Amino acid sequence: MSNSTRCAACRFLRRRCRQDCVLAPYFPPTNPQRFAYVHKVFGASKITELLKQLPVHLRYDAAECMSIEAASRARDPVYGCVGVISQLQQQIIDVQSELVKIKGKLAVHNAQQQLQLEDGERASEQ
Amino acid sequence: MSNSTRCAACRFLRRRCRQDCVLAPYFPPTNPQRFAYVHKVFGASKITELLKQLPVHLRYDAAECMSIEAASRARDPVYGCVGVISQLQQQIIDVQSELVKIKGKLAVHNAQQQLQLEDGERASEQ
Repeated sequence: MSNSTRCAACRFLRRRCRQDCVLAPYFPPTNPQRFAYVHKVFGASKITELLKQLPVHLRYDAAECMSIEAASRARDPVYGCVGVISQLQQQIIDVQSELVKIKGKLAVHNAQQQLQLEDGERASEQ
Repeated sequence: MSNSTRCAACRFLRRRCRQDCVLAPYFPPTNPQRFAYVHKVFGASKITELLKQLPVHLRYDAAECMSIEAASRARDPVYGCVGVISQLQQQIIDVQSELVKIKGKLAVHNAQQQLQLEDGERASEQ
């Protein structure tokens, strides 16, 4: 492949991009930052190794997820993706807690309505 | 450090564990699997590089988060931590959707109660 059509990985690593380059389909030259992040976190050999271990139809998703993980660590070098997981877990706890409160209010309303119905029935019997 | 007290990283990499080993405080010899996962995903040089870039008081959390990320990828080589994030996001959507439904029910109950109150007031005026 000529210099102008090298994938982002081969361009970053300043090497020739071979026809059978494992990284080329997932790191196009149009998005050099994507490979730069992934390289900084995992390194080219680990990405290549991981992709090679997977069937071809799963490699796009794996490269995408590694890019997301790497971008998370670039944003947050201490917690990375795990920081996002913690925030989401907290958000679930908050929404579940609100749900429990609202369900409680609804149960009170239902009980009041039941009492009113029974009062109405008793009044009509008298 | 003698062979028996080498950290998990130095034992894994079959090297001498120096007094100033950057990895030793976070990869004790008692948990060799933890380093094995992290090494498989990030590689020893990337872990060392990332830890060295951080202030010492943040390194424990960073090593912990890299271990969690690496264990996630060992469980799920395609999606890793990003798979966990997707599941949590779906869980939030589900709980929020349930919350909207329950709030709707509560609003109906409140409206009914308001109507009953108004009916009662009208009846007592007549």
